[in-house]
Amino acid sequence: MTTHKVLIAGQWRDSDATGTFQAEDPRAAAKINENYPVSSWSECEAALDAATKAFAQLRQLPRETIAAFLETFADRINARSAEICELASRETAYPVEPRLASGELPRTTDQLRQAAAAARSANWCIPVIDTQTNIRSFYAAIGPVAVFGPNNFPLAFGSISGGDFAAAIAAGNPVIAKANSMHPGTTRLLAEEARAAADESGMPAGTVQLIYRLAHADGEKLARDPRLAAIGYTGSRDAGLKLKAAADSVGKPIYLELSSINPVVILPGSLEERYDEIVAEMTGSCLMGTGQFCTNPGLVILQKGEPADRFVDSLSEKFNAAPVGTLLSESGQKGLAAAVETLKNAGAEQICGATEGGGEGYSYANTVLQIDGDRFLANPHVLQTEAFGNSTLIVKTDSLEQAAKVICSLEGNLTGCIYSASNGNDDEAYDQLVPDLRQRVGRLLNDKMPTGVAVTAAMNHGGPFPATGHPGFTAVGIPGSILRFAALQCFDNIRPHRLPDVLQDENPCNAWRRVDGIWTQANVTELATA
Amino acid sequence: MTTHKVLIAGQWRDSDATGTFQAEDPRAAAKINENYPVSSWSECEAALDAATKAFAQLRQLPRETIAAFLETFADRINARSAEICELASRETAYPVEPRLASGELPRTTDQLRQAAAAARSANWCIPVIDTQTNIRSFYAAIGPVAVFGPNNFPLAFGSISGGDFAAAIAAGNPVIAKANSMHPGTTRLLAEEARAAADESGMPAGTVQLIYRLAHADGEKLARDPRLAAIGYTGSRDAGLKLKAAADSVGKPIYLELSSINPVVILPGSLEERYDEIVAEMTGSCLMGTGQFCTNPGLVILQKGEPADRFVDSLSEKFNAAPVGTLLSESGQKGLAAAVETLKNAGAEQICGATEGGGEGYSYANTVLQIDGDRFLANPHVLQTEAFGNSTLIVKTDSLEQAAKVICSLEGNLTGCIYSASNGNDDEAYDQLVPDLRQRVGRLLNDKMPTGVAVTAAMNHGGPFPATGHPGFTAVGIPGSILRFAALQCFDNIRPHRLPDVLQDENPCNAWRRVDGIWTQANVTELATA
Repeated sequence: MTTHKVLIAGQWRDSDATGTFQAEDPRAAAKINENYPVSSWSECEAALDAATKAFAQLRQLPRETIAAFLETFADRINARSAEICELASRETAYPVEPRLASGELPRTTDQLRQAAAAARSANWCIPVIDTQTNIRSFYAAIGPVAVFGPNNFPLAFGSISGGDFAAAIAAGNPVIAKANSMHPGTTRLLAEEARAAADESGMPAGTVQLIYRLAHADGEKLARDPRLAAIGYTGSRDAGLKLKAAADSVGKPIYLELSSINPVVILPGSLEERYDEIVAEMTGSCLMGTGQFCTNPGLVILQKGEPADRFVDSLSEKFNAAPVGTLLSESGQKGLAAAVETLKNAGAEQICGATEGGGEGYSYANTVLQIDGDRFLANPHVLQTEAFGNSTLIVKTDSLEQAAKVICSLEGNLTGCIYSASNGNDDEAYDQLVPDLRQRVGRLLNDKMPTGVAVTAAMNHGGPFPATGHPGFTAVGIPGSILRFAALQCFDNIRPHRLPDVLQDENPCNAWRRVDGIWTQANVTELATA
Repeated sequence: MTTHKVLIAGQWRDSDATGTFQAEDPRAAAKINENYPVSSWSECEAALDAATKAFAQLRQLPRETIAAFLETFADRINARSAEICELASRETAYPVEPRLASGELPRTTDQLRQAAAAARSANWCIPVIDTQTNIRSFYAAIGPVAVFGPNNFPLAFGSISGGDFAAAIAAGNPVIAKANSMHPGTTRLLAEEARAAADESGMPAGTVQLIYRLAHADGEKLARDPRLAAIGYTGSRDAGLKLKAAADSVGKPIYLELSSINPVVILPGSLEERYDEIVAEMTGSCLMGTGQFCTNPGLVILQKGEPADRFVDSLSEKFNAAPVGTLLSESGQKGLAAAVETLKNAGAEQICGATEGGGEGYSYANTVLQIDGDRFLANPHVLQTEAFGNSTLIVKTDSLEQAAKVICSLEGNLTGCIYSASNGNDDEAYDQLVPDLRQRVGRLLNDKMPTGVAVTAAMNHGGPFPATGHPGFTAVGIPGSILRFAALQCFDNIRPHRLPDVLQDENPCNAWRRVDGIWTQANVTELATA
């Protein structure tokens, strides 16, 4: 059995590997018979040098070349869609339809095309021109970026195809992709298309590079290396915090997306009004993708009483009746089991599920746990343990005041939802709870479950620590997500012909710019004479 | 001798002090006979609780109240200008005129007024509205902010009056100010006016609080405390990195402004063309404020040869002829002497100065050092030691290639300047050097010294580590600097009347918003029908 090659400096080459690993077929609960290399530090060195060279060349290229690359790549992914989705399905157990072929893949190519449009129009880089002082600034490419993608979105968050990749490239940076070990084959297919697209569109060799796995120590060394400018990481909290510590120690931006339990508050009036709908929405959102979504609702806050008891019963019935999905990996199954055990040990009562197996391959029964507000508040830290998968914890609170306390005990999360009655009966409760919830989440929702993260300009897929590493940035949404991989550059008294084109008086690319406090697409000279 | 009170929860109260300290009169090289407290942790607790309460109230206030506070505060500073400048002059040895009364003080009040305008118009918070998905986002107040101001700008960067303070307040956050130990009296006067202005304009008690000094361990505890949302720090690298490590460990945004040596490249053609002007500009920029500016040009890169030798001679003559200024403190004098010694031990040759004393009180002779490019490149890390004060190191390079290597060896800096001939003779050299310099500095200048940091929207007073902790943010310039103290908040399917006013369909405050990709001040409904 040969070992797959890595993509370094524009070439697929034999890895200078320190070992190999195999992906899993989660449905078969077995290894897939293909070897992928664990790269040595020398391979990181080669990738860093190639990325450094690529970056110097990228800075000289017209924005159009970057846009063309992203679009060509999207076209090539479309053309190879069947093969990519088939392998992704084998490595993740996600169904080809509807999840991969008509869901995640179009989302991925749409994201690449949105990034292309942003790169072409420069609408992401916030050009600011102060004519009186002749000082101008914008956000510019930061340098080589390493992307560590998660296990749960092999395409749309994939290391060499997803949101971080698209954002880093759109800003003008080369990317060193570290594949997620759960789907190296899918990442390899995507990297083949990325590399071919880079060649076709005239991007420098070394713009897109791929390694599959690194020893933890080498990952941290990479994070500290001065040739690397920034990092995007989506995954487990432990590994992410180690990379963050390494990056922080050298003052390097690292954008993390870590755990999130996404609290959902269901106020009594809404339950009275839309009981069946809310049960159905919650079941769908909790079990979608076997619960393996960053925005999976892992914590539900209800007011104690008959309607809440009935809601828990109905939810358990639905959970019991729903098919048990396959989880991404053996470690995913074990991790979920361990998290549920932790929650139970901290006082959560098992309503349904909470046993391993029950589905095809790696699986865990659809699980509902519940706990009283006072018990939750006795141990809020442990009771916020993320149970990544098809498990949800219901907290039943005595009073609105207690619900407020539960909310105030929460760590940072990606999302927070409040369901309330449409007739205004819950408005007072809403007003009392929302300020504290608002400060603890990146995205606040009304009457809507948190799964489903639209790739739209106003999206924030981010939030306070530990959901992410900085509450000012989003991982989804263009143009906003691009700013993560950019540095603010100011030009003071720079001779006109030496300015970047988007900061010159003329504005041939029609970029939106803030000139003397006014957002405009006009030339500076037109404004002066207006 | 009584000990001055701290400002906690809206009241001047006796400090629960663990000790006291005295400021220095640098001209007299003696302590000033007034005691300031070193606060205990219990005082931090009280400040954190008061700030938490204030923040809850601030979120309910109209933006106008915040704007009115900032303007009232500016008015009150103006009204007490003579007393403030006199005490600041005593504590810093900066002359009342021209430095304080007609320089730094108007800069400070202008900054507060710009912040007020930004708070009123919401022009800083980047409202984004996507009508198709009904997703909306903006930047909102992050929570209580601690500000640690530097020694070198008692007013314009002062903990309770400067840029970080103005930005944090404009975003809607309470501030816990930690005075710089070099000018506690000045900070006290400013805090008195801030507190009075807060009362007058109806800001919650606890919006502005002041302590004077903390044990290092308590400072780090403060940085880790969950009640504190963000930190602004300007000062020495060592203390800043300790605070950063504490803040990073809990994923809290900390904005640092640390050391910077601000390289200036003078290309041969410019020297030939404007020799006398450049000598004069350089002398002025290097010795202004006795060199105690964040953007002081500490490293000058020249091409070896007769003109460079002559330039060094002329510069030394000017340095010798110029009066020796007073430094801010005894530790400043000792620190400068130690840094020059470090540079000399690493191979820098002393051309003039390099002795302690020579001016009134704490002082150090105006100093020019020089070194060859190859010797610089043998030990670039040590030779970038910041000599904070009136000392400058000249690097003479053999060739353009060597100059490029010197630039590539530089750490992140706030600024980088290139002087070049106006007739185009230096253009090739410029083009060769500028890409590498550009990536290493926050602000690039042509034909202009880096001192003088205009408070203008396009300013970037920031740069790659270790100049700051994140290259995407500026400490000077409104509205940009306000974004540091804000979190991205997204509103998904939120009922219209529950949206913050700047995100509603109507736009009564006339904010600039990006609606469906278009920057506009119009109502959403007007756009839809347009």
